[in-house]
Amino acid sequence: MNLSLNTATVRRQWNLAQIIDGCARHEIRGISPWRDQVASLGLQKTRALIEQHGLTVTGLCRGGFFSEKNWLEDNLRAIEEAHALGAPALILVVGGMPAGSKDLSSCRKQVQDCIAQVLPEARKAGVPLAIEPLHPMQVTRAAVNTLEQALDVCDALGEGVGVAVDVYHVWWDPKLQGQIARAGRRILGYHICDWLPATRDLFNDRGMMGDGLIDLPLIRSWVEAAGYTGFQEVEIFSDLDWWQRDPDEVLRTCNERLTVC
Amino acid sequence: MNLSLNTATVRRQWNLAQIIDGCARHEIRGISPWRDQVASLGLQKTRALIEQHGLTVTGLCRGGFFSEKNWLEDNLRAIEEAHALGAPALILVVGGMPAGSKDLSSCRKQVQDCIAQVLPEARKAGVPLAIEPLHPMQVTRAAVNTLEQALDVCDALGEGVGVAVDVYHVWWDPKLQGQIARAGRRILGYHICDWLPATRDLFNDRGMMGDGLIDLPLIRSWVEAAGYTGFQEVEIFSDLDWWQRDPDEVLRTCNERLTVC
Repeated sequence: MNLSLNTATVRRQWNLAQIIDGCARHEIRGISPWRDQVASLGLQKTRALIEQHGLTVTGLCRGGFFSEKNWLEDNLRAIEEAHALGAPALILVVGGMPAGSKDLSSCRKQVQDCIAQVLPEARKAGVPLAIEPLHPMQVTRAAVNTLEQALDVCDALGEGVGVAVDVYHVWWDPKLQGQIARAGRRILGYHICDWLPATRDLFNDRGMMGDGLIDLPLIRSWVEAAGYTGFQEVEIFSDLDWWQRDPDEVLRTCNERLTVC
Repeated sequence: MNLSLNTATVRRQWNLAQIIDGCARHEIRGISPWRDQVASLGLQKTRALIEQHGLTVTGLCRGGFFSEKNWLEDNLRAIEEAHALGAPALILVVGGMPAGSKDLSSCRKQVQDCIAQVLPEARKAGVPLAIEPLHPMQVTRAAVNTLEQALDVCDALGEGVGVAVDVYHVWWDPKLQGQIARAGRRILGYHICDWLPATRDLFNDRGMMGDGLIDLPLIRSWVEAAGYTGFQEVEIFSDLDWWQRDPDEVLRTCNERLTVC
Protein backbone atom coordinates (compact mmCIF):
# COMPACT_ATOMS: atom_id res chain seq x y z
CA MET A 1 0.00 0.00 0.00
CA ASN A 2 1.12 3.53 -0.73
CA LEU A 3 1.67 5.92 2.14
CA SER A 4 -0.45 8.96 2.85
CA LEU A 5 0.10 11.57 5.51
CA ASN A 6 -2.74 12.76 7.65
CA THR A 7 -1.68 16.32 8.23
CA ALA A 8 -2.48 16.15 11.96
CA THR A 9 0.75 14.20 12.31
CA VAL A 10 2.90 17.33 12.00
CA ARG A 11 0.31 20.03 12.53
CA ARG A 12 2.10 21.53 15.51
CA GLN A 13 5.31 22.08 13.55
CA TRP A 14 4.21 22.99 10.01
CA ASN A 15 1.42 24.83 8.24
CA LEU A 16 -0.35 23.12 5.35
CA ALA A 17 1.87 24.59 2.64
CA GLN A 18 4.92 23.29 4.48
CA ILE A 19 3.29 19.89 4.95
CA ILE A 20 2.49 19.59 1.23
CA ASP A 21 6.06 20.48 0.42
CA GLY A 22 7.32 18.02 3.06
CA CYS A 23 5.26 15.17 1.62
CA ALA A 24 6.68 15.84 -1.85
CA ARG A 25 10.27 15.97 -0.55
CA HIS A 26 9.82 12.72 1.40
CA GLU A 27 8.06 11.02 -1.51
CA ILE A 28 4.87 10.51 0.42
CA ARG A 29 2.32 10.46 -2.40
CA GLY A 30 -0.93 10.86 -0.47
CA ILE A 31 -2.24 13.56 1.84
CA SER A 32 -5.30 13.91 4.03
CA PRO A 33 -5.70 17.48 5.25
CA TRP A 34 -7.80 18.92 8.06
CA ARG A 35 -10.34 21.57 7.24
CA ASP A 36 -8.97 24.21 9.59
CA GLN A 37 -5.63 23.98 7.80
CA VAL A 38 -7.35 24.17 4.42
CA ALA A 39 -9.25 27.25 5.58
CA SER A 40 -6.02 28.93 6.69
CA LEU A 41 -4.26 28.27 3.40
CA GLY A 42 -7.37 28.82 1.29
CA LEU A 43 -9.30 26.13 -0.57
CA GLN A 44 -8.16 27.08 -4.09
CA LYS A 45 -4.55 27.51 -3.07
CA THR A 46 -4.62 24.15 -1.25
CA ARG A 47 -5.96 22.44 -4.34
CA ALA A 48 -3.40 24.12 -6.55
CA LEU A 49 -0.45 23.24 -4.28
CA ILE A 50 -1.55 19.63 -3.92
CA GLU A 51 -1.88 19.30 -7.70
CA GLN A 52 1.36 21.06 -8.36
CA HIS A 53 3.21 18.61 -6.08
CA GLY A 54 1.46 15.62 -7.64
CA LEU A 55 -0.12 14.44 -4.41
CA THR A 56 -3.30 12.38 -4.12
CA VAL A 57 -5.91 13.49 -1.59
CA THR A 58 -6.92 10.42 0.42
CA GLY A 59 -9.57 12.04 2.60
CA LEU A 60 -10.73 15.28 4.13
CA CYS A 61 -10.90 15.59 7.93
CA ARG A 62 -13.54 16.13 9.06
CA GLY A 63 -17.30 16.39 9.03
CA GLY A 64 -19.55 15.20 11.80
CA PHE A 65 -19.88 16.61 15.33
CA PHE A 66 -23.63 16.39 14.97
CA SER A 67 -24.34 17.61 18.48
CA GLU A 68 -23.08 21.09 17.63
CA LYS A 69 -25.53 23.83 16.77
CA ASN A 70 -24.31 24.55 13.25
CA TRP A 71 -23.83 20.90 12.28
CA LEU A 72 -25.97 21.03 9.16
CA GLU A 73 -24.40 24.07 7.58
CA ASP A 74 -20.94 22.91 8.60
CA ASN A 75 -21.35 19.45 7.12
CA LEU A 76 -22.75 20.80 3.86
CA ARG A 77 -19.74 23.07 3.59
CA ALA A 78 -17.43 20.16 4.35
CA ILE A 79 -18.99 18.16 1.52
CA GLU A 80 -18.35 21.06 -0.88
CA GLU A 81 -14.76 21.32 0.25
CA ALA A 82 -14.19 17.59 -0.10
CA HIS A 83 -15.61 17.80 -3.62
CA ALA A 84 -13.40 20.75 -4.48
CA LEU A 85 -10.31 18.89 -3.29
CA GLY A 86 -11.23 15.68 -5.08
CA ALA A 87 -11.22 13.79 -1.78
CA PRO A 88 -12.41 10.19 -2.10
CA ALA A 89 -14.22 10.57 1.23
CA LEU A 90 -15.24 13.04 3.90
CA ILE A 91 -14.22 11.58 7.25
CA LEU A 92 -16.95 11.87 9.89
CA VAL A 93 -16.10 12.19 13.56
CA VAL A 94 -19.67 12.04 14.71
CA GLY A 95 -19.52 13.84 18.04
CA GLY A 96 -20.70 12.82 21.49
CA MET A 97 -23.61 13.57 23.77
CA PRO A 98 -24.63 17.22 24.10
CA ALA A 99 -23.59 18.92 27.35
CA GLY A 100 -25.63 17.75 30.31
CA SER A 101 -26.97 14.64 28.60
CA LYS A 102 -26.39 11.05 29.67
CA ASP A 103 -28.54 9.64 26.90
CA LEU A 104 -26.03 7.81 24.76
CA SER A 105 -28.68 5.87 22.93
CA SER A 106 -30.53 8.98 21.73
CA CYS A 107 -27.24 10.54 20.75
CA ARG A 108 -26.54 7.55 18.54
CA LYS A 109 -29.96 7.73 16.91
CA GLN A 110 -29.38 11.43 16.33
CA VAL A 111 -26.08 10.72 14.61
CA GLN A 112 -27.76 8.40 12.16
CA ASP A 113 -30.56 10.90 11.48
CA CYS A 114 -28.07 13.68 10.84
CA ILE A 115 -26.03 11.59 8.42
CA ALA A 116 -29.26 10.71 6.62
CA GLN A 117 -30.02 14.41 6.29
CA VAL A 118 -26.73 15.35 4.63
CA LEU A 119 -26.42 12.17 2.57
CA PRO A 120 -28.40 13.41 -0.46
CA GLU A 121 -26.03 16.36 -0.82
CA ALA A 122 -23.02 14.08 -0.43
CA ARG A 123 -24.33 11.76 -3.12
CA LYS A 124 -25.00 14.67 -5.45
CA ALA A 125 -21.46 15.93 -4.92
CA GLY A 126 -20.02 12.45 -5.41
CA VAL A 127 -18.41 12.59 -1.97
CA PRO A 128 -18.76 9.37 0.03
CA LEU A 129 -19.13 9.85 3.78
CA ALA A 130 -16.77 7.76 5.92
CA ILE A 131 -17.96 7.10 9.44
CA GLU A 132 -14.91 6.69 11.64
CA PRO A 133 -15.62 4.66 14.77
CA LEU A 134 -13.52 6.11 17.58
CA HIS A 135 -12.07 4.18 20.49
CA PRO A 136 -14.60 3.74 23.31
CA MET A 137 -12.41 5.91 25.55
CA GLN A 138 -13.13 8.77 23.13
CA VAL A 139 -16.90 8.41 23.34
CA THR A 140 -17.16 12.12 24.18
CA ARG A 141 -15.83 12.89 20.68
CA ALA A 142 -17.75 10.18 18.87
CA ALA A 143 -20.63 8.00 19.96
CA VAL A 144 -19.87 5.50 17.20
CA ASN A 145 -17.33 3.24 18.85
CA THR A 146 -17.07 -0.03 16.98
CA LEU A 147 -16.84 -1.00 13.36
CA GLU A 148 -19.92 -3.17 13.82
CA GLN A 149 -21.92 -0.18 15.01
CA ALA A 150 -20.66 1.97 12.12
CA LEU A 151 -21.60 -0.71 9.61
CA ASP A 152 -25.06 -1.02 11.12
CA VAL A 153 -25.49 2.68 10.35
CA CYS A 154 -24.14 2.14 6.83
CA ASP A 155 -26.58 -0.73 6.30
CA ALA A 156 -29.45 1.50 7.37
CA LEU A 157 -28.46 4.40 5.12
CA GLY A 158 -27.33 2.64 1.96
CA GLU A 159 -25.26 3.97 -0.91
CA GLY A 160 -22.77 6.76 -0.27
CA VAL A 161 -21.78 5.91 3.31
CA GLY A 162 -18.81 3.81 4.35
CA VAL A 163 -16.25 3.61 7.10
CA ALA A 164 -12.74 4.77 7.91
CA VAL A 165 -10.77 2.08 9.71
CA ASP A 166 -8.19 3.56 12.06
CA VAL A 167 -6.19 0.83 13.75
CA TYR A 168 -5.82 2.93 16.91
CA HIS A 169 -9.56 2.94 17.44
CA VAL A 170 -10.40 -0.64 16.53
CA TRP A 171 -7.36 -2.88 17.08
CA TRP A 172 -8.64 -4.19 20.44
CA ASP A 173 -11.99 -5.36 19.02
CA PRO A 174 -12.51 -9.14 19.20
CA LYS A 175 -14.84 -8.88 16.21
CA LEU A 176 -12.48 -6.82 14.06
CA GLN A 177 -11.58 -9.38 11.43
CA GLY A 178 -15.20 -10.30 10.77
CA GLN A 179 -16.37 -6.71 10.65
CA ILE A 180 -13.59 -5.70 8.24
CA ALA A 181 -14.72 -8.52 5.97
CA ARG A 182 -18.31 -7.35 6.34
CA ALA A 183 -17.28 -3.80 5.44
CA GLY A 184 -15.73 -4.92 2.18
CA ARG A 185 -15.64 -2.15 -0.41
CA ARG A 186 -17.18 0.25 2.06
CA ILE A 187 -13.74 0.81 3.61
CA LEU A 188 -13.01 4.36 2.47
CA GLY A 189 -9.83 4.94 4.46
CA TYR A 190 -7.24 2.97 6.40
CA HIS A 191 -5.35 4.86 9.10
CA ILE A 192 -2.26 3.63 10.89
CA CYS A 193 -0.19 4.45 13.98
CA ASP A 194 0.40 2.36 17.12
CA TRP A 195 -0.94 1.80 20.64
CA LEU A 196 1.71 2.58 23.23
CA PRO A 197 1.77 0.06 26.10
CA ALA A 198 1.99 2.92 28.60
CA THR A 199 -0.48 5.36 27.06
CA ARG A 200 -0.45 8.64 29.00
CA ASP A 201 -3.42 10.46 27.52
CA LEU A 202 -6.78 9.45 26.06
CA PHE A 203 -6.48 11.58 22.94
CA ASN A 204 -2.98 12.71 22.08
CA ASP A 205 -0.55 9.94 22.92
CA ARG A 206 -0.51 7.78 19.82
CA GLY A 207 2.63 5.90 18.93
CA MET A 208 4.66 5.63 15.73
CA MET A 209 4.11 2.37 13.85
CA GLY A 210 6.29 -0.32 15.41
CA ASP A 211 6.52 1.32 18.83
CA GLY A 212 3.40 -0.32 20.25
CA LEU A 213 1.23 -3.38 20.48
CA ILE A 214 -0.77 -3.37 17.24
CA ASP A 215 -0.15 -6.17 14.75
CA LEU A 216 -0.26 -3.85 11.74
CA PRO A 217 0.56 -6.39 9.01
CA LEU A 218 -2.28 -8.60 10.25
CA ILE A 219 -4.89 -5.85 10.16
CA ARG A 220 -3.59 -4.66 6.78
CA SER A 221 -4.02 -8.18 5.44
CA TRP A 222 -7.66 -8.17 6.56
CA VAL A 223 -8.28 -4.77 4.97
CA GLU A 224 -6.67 -5.89 1.71
CA ALA A 225 -8.66 -9.12 1.75
CA ALA A 226 -11.80 -6.98 2.01
CA GLY A 227 -10.86 -5.38 -1.29
CA TYR A 228 -9.35 -2.09 -0.13
CA THR A 229 -6.86 -0.77 -2.66
CA GLY A 230 -6.26 2.74 -1.31
CA PHE A 231 -3.44 4.28 0.67
CA GLN A 232 -2.48 3.61 4.26
CA GLU A 233 -2.62 6.95 6.00
CA VAL A 234 -0.41 7.76 8.97
CA GLU A 235 -2.28 9.72 11.64
CA ILE A 236 -0.39 10.39 14.85
CA PHE A 237 -1.62 12.74 17.56
CA SER A 238 1.31 12.97 19.93
CA ASP A 239 1.54 15.83 22.35
CA LEU A 240 4.50 14.46 24.27
CA ASP A 241 6.62 13.03 21.49
CA TRP A 242 6.13 13.34 17.72
CA TRP A 243 4.61 16.81 17.81
CA GLN A 244 7.78 17.94 19.55
CA ARG A 245 10.20 16.54 16.98
CA ASP A 246 11.71 17.91 13.79
CA PRO A 247 8.93 17.28 11.24
CA ASP A 248 11.41 16.02 8.67
CA GLU A 249 12.44 13.36 11.17
CA VAL A 250 8.77 12.47 11.66
CA LEU A 251 8.19 12.00 7.92
CA ARG A 252 11.46 10.09 7.48
CA THR A 253 10.43 7.78 10.31
CA CYS A 254 6.95 7.23 8.80
CA ASN A 255 8.63 6.05 5.61
CA GLU A 256 11.12 3.83 7.41
CA ARG A 257 8.45 2.19 9.52
CA LEU A 258 6.47 1.05 6.49
CA THR A 259 8.45 -2.17 6.82
CA VAL A 260 6.49 -3.02 9.99
CA CYS A 261 3.07 -2.08 8.60
CA MET B 1 -30.09 -2.76 45.61
CA ASN B 2 -27.93 -2.87 48.70
CA LEU B 3 -24.58 -1.19 48.67
CA SER B 4 -21.25 -2.99 48.82
CA LEU B 5 -17.82 -1.45 49.04
CA ASN B 6 -15.03 -2.68 46.86
CA THR B 7 -12.09 -2.10 49.16
CA ALA B 8 -9.97 -0.57 46.39
CA THR B 9 -12.10 2.55 46.84
CA VAL B 10 -10.26 3.56 50.03
CA ARG B 11 -7.21 1.32 49.85
CA ARG B 12 -4.77 4.21 49.90
CA GLN B 13 -6.15 5.57 53.19
CA TRP B 14 -7.14 2.49 55.20
CA ASN B 15 -6.00 -1.07 55.78
CA LEU B 16 -8.56 -3.86 55.54
CA ALA B 17 -9.41 -3.92 59.24
CA GLN B 18 -10.14 -0.19 59.11
CA ILE B 19 -12.22 -0.64 55.94
CA ILE B 20 -14.34 -3.37 57.55
CA ASP B 21 -14.88 -1.15 60.54
CA GLY B 22 -15.69 1.79 58.25
CA CYS B 23 -18.29 -0.21 56.32
CA ALA B 24 -20.00 -1.18 59.56
CA ARG B 25 -20.02 2.40 60.85
CA HIS B 26 -21.43 3.72 57.57
CA GLU B 27 -23.99 0.92 57.36
CA ILE B 28 -22.59 -0.41 54.12
CA ARG B 29 -23.60 -4.05 54.39
CA GLY B 30 -21.46 -5.61 51.65
CA ILE B 31 -17.72 -5.77 51.09
CA SER B 32 -15.52 -7.02 48.26
CA PRO B 33 -11.89 -7.22 49.38
CA TRP B 34 -8.69 -7.53 47.36
CA ARG B 35 -6.44 -10.50 47.97
CA ASP B 36 -3.34 -8.50 48.86
CA GLN B 37 -5.30 -6.81 51.64
CA VAL B 38 -6.63 -10.17 52.82
CA ALA B 39 -3.08 -11.55 52.85
CA SER B 40 -1.87 -8.62 54.95
CA LEU B 41 -4.63 -9.00 57.52
CA GLY B 42 -4.64 -12.80 57.39
CA LEU B 43 -7.35 -14.96 55.87
CA GLN B 44 -8.83 -16.24 59.14
CA LYS B 45 -8.73 -12.84 60.77
CA THR B 46 -10.41 -11.28 57.72
CA ARG B 47 -13.17 -13.84 57.85
CA ALA B 48 -13.65 -13.35 61.57
CA LEU B 49 -13.79 -9.55 61.34
CA ILE B 50 -16.22 -9.60 58.43
CA GLU B 51 -18.51 -12.00 60.30
CA GLN B 52 -18.20 -10.07 63.53
CA HIS B 53 -19.34 -6.88 61.76
CA GLY B 54 -22.19 -8.66 60.01
CA LEU B 55 -20.98 -7.86 56.50
CA THR B 56 -21.73 -9.86 53.38
CA VAL B 57 -18.82 -10.66 51.06
CA THR B 58 -19.95 -9.79 47.51
CA GLY B 59 -16.82 -10.93 45.69
CA LEU B 60 -13.10 -11.52 45.99
CA CYS B 61 -10.72 -9.52 43.79
CA ARG B 62 -9.07 -11.03 41.94
CA GLY B 63 -7.98 -14.14 40.06
CA GLY B 64 -6.86 -14.13 36.46
CA PHE B 65 -3.70 -12.60 34.96
CA PHE B 66 -3.23 -15.76 32.96
CA SER B 67 -0.13 -14.53 31.19
CA GLU B 68 1.89 -14.61 34.40
CA LYS B 69 4.18 -17.53 35.13
CA ASN B 70 2.53 -18.70 38.35
CA TRP B 71 -1.05 -18.26 37.10
CA LEU B 72 -2.19 -21.79 37.83
CA GLU B 73 -0.99 -21.95 41.42
CA ASP B 74 -2.17 -18.41 42.05
CA ASN B 75 -5.66 -18.99 40.71
CA LEU B 76 -6.08 -22.23 42.66
CA ARG B 77 -5.09 -20.35 45.81
CA ALA B 78 -7.54 -17.57 44.95
CA ILE B 79 -10.33 -20.12 44.64
CA GLU B 80 -9.50 -21.49 48.08
CA GLU B 81 -9.49 -18.00 49.56
CA ALA B 82 -12.81 -17.13 47.94
CA HIS B 83 -14.26 -20.33 49.37
CA ALA B 84 -12.90 -19.57 52.84
CA LEU B 85 -14.43 -16.08 52.76
CA GLY B 86 -17.78 -17.32 51.46
CA ALA B 87 -17.47 -15.07 48.40
CA PRO B 88 -20.24 -15.59 45.84
CA ALA B 89 -17.66 -15.19 43.06
CA LEU B 90 -13.98 -14.87 42.33
CA ILE B 91 -13.53 -11.88 40.04
CA LEU B 92 -11.21 -12.58 37.12
CA VAL B 93 -9.10 -9.83 35.58
CA VAL B 94 -7.77 -12.01 32.82
CA GLY B 95 -4.50 -10.28 31.95
CA GLY B 96 -3.13 -9.05 28.65
CA MET B 97 -0.60 -10.17 26.10
CA PRO B 98 2.73 -11.42 27.43
CA ALA B 99 5.66 -9.00 27.05
CA GLY B 100 6.85 -8.74 23.47
CA SER B 101 3.72 -10.25 21.95
CA LYS B 102 1.31 -8.56 19.56
CA ASP B 103 -0.85 -11.65 19.21
CA LEU B 104 -4.08 -10.57 20.83
CA SER B 105 -6.04 -13.42 19.33
CA SER B 106 -3.78 -16.11 20.82
CA CYS B 107 -3.85 -14.31 24.14
CA ARG B 108 -7.63 -14.52 24.12
CA LYS B 109 -7.59 -18.23 23.30
CA GLN B 110 -5.09 -18.73 26.10
CA VAL B 111 -7.39 -16.96 28.56
CA GLN B 112 -10.22 -19.32 27.75
CA ASP B 113 -7.94 -22.37 28.05
CA CYS B 114 -6.65 -21.23 31.43
CA ILE B 115 -10.13 -20.65 32.81
CA ALA B 116 -11.09 -24.11 31.56
CA GLN B 117 -8.14 -25.55 33.49
CA VAL B 118 -9.07 -24.04 36.86
CA LEU B 119 -12.82 -24.42 36.42
CA PRO B 120 -13.05 -27.98 37.84
CA GLU B 121 -11.46 -26.79 41.09
CA ALA B 122 -13.75 -23.77 41.22
CA ARG B 123 -16.79 -25.98 40.75
CA LYS B 124 -15.61 -28.37 43.46
CA ALA B 125 -15.13 -25.44 45.83
CA GLY B 126 -18.51 -23.97 44.93
CA VAL B 127 -16.86 -20.72 43.82
CA PRO B 128 -18.25 -19.28 40.57
CA LEU B 129 -15.69 -17.50 38.40
CA ALA B 130 -16.73 -14.04 37.24
CA ILE B 131 -15.02 -12.84 34.07
CA GLU B 132 -14.84 -9.06 34.20
CA PRO B 133 -14.55 -7.48 30.79
CA LEU B 134 -12.33 -4.43 31.09
CA HIS B 135 -12.60 -1.27 29.04
CA PRO B 136 -10.80 -1.57 25.69
CA MET B 137 -8.33 1.11 26.83
CA GLN B 138 -7.22 -1.35 29.53
CA VAL B 139 -6.51 -4.19 27.10
CA THR B 140 -3.02 -4.54 28.59
CA ARG B 141 -4.64 -5.64 31.87
CA ALA B 142 -7.38 -7.76 30.34
CA ALA B 143 -7.84 -9.05 26.81
CA VAL B 144 -11.55 -9.61 27.44
CA ASN B 145 -13.04 -6.25 26.57
CA THR B 146 -16.76 -6.57 25.93
CA LEU B 147 -19.59 -8.31 27.67
CA GLU B 148 -20.37 -10.13 24.44
CA GLN B 149 -16.84 -11.56 24.34
CA ALA B 150 -17.01 -12.58 28.00
CA LEU B 151 -20.33 -14.33 27.44
CA ASP B 152 -18.95 -16.18 24.43
CA VAL B 153 -16.31 -17.59 26.80
CA CYS B 154 -19.01 -18.45 29.34
CA ASP B 155 -21.03 -20.21 26.65
CA ALA B 156 -18.00 -22.27 25.70
CA LEU B 157 -17.15 -23.27 29.27
CA GLY B 158 -20.57 -23.91 30.79
CA GLU B 159 -21.58 -24.13 34.43
CA GLY B 160 -19.57 -22.23 37.03
CA VAL B 161 -18.49 -19.24 34.93
CA GLY B 162 -20.28 -15.91 34.75
CA VAL B 163 -19.50 -12.22 34.41
CA ALA B 164 -18.95 -9.16 36.54
CA VAL B 165 -20.55 -6.08 35.01
CA ASP B 166 -18.66 -2.92 35.89
CA VAL B 167 -20.36 0.11 34.41
CA TYR B 168 -17.03 1.88 33.94
CA HIS B 169 -15.86 -0.81 31.54
CA VAL B 170 -19.03 -1.40 29.56
CA TRP B 171 -21.22 1.73 29.62
CA TRP B 172 -20.11 2.86 26.14
CA ASP B 173 -21.06 -0.44 24.47
CA PRO B 174 -23.86 -0.09 21.89
CA LYS B 175 -24.77 -3.74 22.52
CA LEU B 176 -24.87 -3.43 26.32
CA GLN B 177 -28.58 -3.81 26.91
CA GLY B 178 -28.84 -6.92 24.77
CA GLN B 179 -25.76 -8.53 26.26
CA ILE B 180 -26.93 -7.88 29.84
CA ALA B 181 -30.20 -9.62 28.94
CA ARG B 182 -28.21 -12.46 27.40
CA ALA B 183 -26.11 -12.76 30.55
CA GLY B 184 -29.17 -13.24 32.73
CA ARG B 185 -28.40 -15.10 35.94
CA ARG B 186 -24.76 -15.31 34.98
CA ILE B 187 -24.27 -11.77 36.28
CA LEU B 188 -22.23 -12.42 39.42
CA GLY B 189 -21.40 -8.86 40.33
CA TYR B 190 -22.49 -5.33 39.46
CA HIS B 191 -19.93 -2.57 39.99
CA ILE B 192 -20.64 1.14 39.92
CA CYS B 193 -18.75 4.43 39.69
CA ASP B 194 -18.80 7.07 36.94
CA TRP B 195 -16.99 8.13 33.76
CA LEU B 196 -15.55 11.61 34.12
CA PRO B 197 -15.98 13.75 30.98
CA ALA B 198 -12.36 14.88 31.27
CA THR B 199 -10.69 11.60 32.23
CA ARG B 200 -7.02 12.18 32.99
CA ASP B 201 -5.69 8.65 33.27
CA LEU B 202 -6.52 5.29 31.68
CA PHE B 203 -6.62 3.37 34.96
CA ASN B 204 -7.01 5.47 38.07
CA ASP B 205 -9.32 8.37 37.32
CA ARG B 206 -12.77 6.98 37.96
CA GLY B 207 -15.48 9.29 39.15
CA MET B 208 -17.95 9.10 42.03
CA MET B 209 -21.49 8.14 40.98
CA GLY B 210 -23.25 11.24 39.71
CA ASP B 211 -20.11 13.11 38.72
CA GLY B 212 -19.91 11.73 35.21
CA LEU B 213 -21.72 10.64 32.08
CA ILE B 214 -23.06 7.18 32.92
CA ASP B 215 -26.81 6.70 33.13
CA LEU B 216 -26.60 4.49 36.21
CA PRO B 217 -30.34 3.99 36.84
CA LEU B 218 -30.76 2.82 33.24
CA ILE B 219 -28.01 0.21 33.42
CA ARG B 220 -29.21 -0.90 36.85
CA SER B 221 -32.69 -1.43 35.40
CA TRP B 222 -31.23 -3.69 32.71
CA VAL B 223 -29.23 -5.67 35.27
CA GLU B 224 -32.30 -6.09 37.46
CA ALA B 225 -34.42 -7.10 34.48
CA ALA B 226 -31.83 -9.82 33.81
CA GLY B 227 -32.59 -11.25 37.25
CA TYR B 228 -29.67 -9.92 39.28
CA THR B 229 -30.58 -9.62 42.94
CA GLY B 230 -27.19 -8.97 44.50
CA PHE B 231 -25.50 -5.82 45.77
CA GLN B 232 -24.27 -2.87 43.76
CA GLU B 233 -20.61 -2.55 44.56
CA VAL B 234 -18.83 0.79 44.48
CA GLU B 235 -15.35 0.51 42.98
CA ILE B 236 -13.47 3.76 42.49
CA PHE B 237 -9.79 3.96 41.55
CA SER B 238 -8.98 7.61 41.90
CA ASP B 239 -5.40 8.71 42.22
CA LEU B 240 -6.11 12.39 41.93
CA ASP B 241 -9.29 12.74 43.94
CA TRP B 242 -11.04 10.12 46.09
CA TRP B 243 -7.85 8.37 47.22
CA GLN B 244 -6.72 11.71 48.59
CA ARG B 245 -9.83 12.41 50.65
CA ASP B 246 -10.84 11.53 54.19
CA PRO B 247 -12.11 7.93 53.81
CA ASP B 248 -15.11 8.65 56.01
CA GLU B 249 -16.09 11.36 53.55
CA VAL B 250 -15.69 8.86 50.70
CA LEU B 251 -18.01 6.32 52.35
CA ARG B 252 -20.51 8.99 53.34
CA THR B 253 -20.57 10.20 49.72
CA CYS B 254 -21.05 6.67 48.38
CA ASN B 255 -24.14 6.34 50.54
CA GLU B 256 -25.49 9.76 49.58
CA ARG B 257 -25.02 9.12 45.88
CA LEU B 258 -27.15 5.99 45.92
CA THR B 259 -30.01 8.30 44.98
CA VAL B 260 -28.47 8.73 41.50
CA CYS B 261 -27.70 5.04 40.95
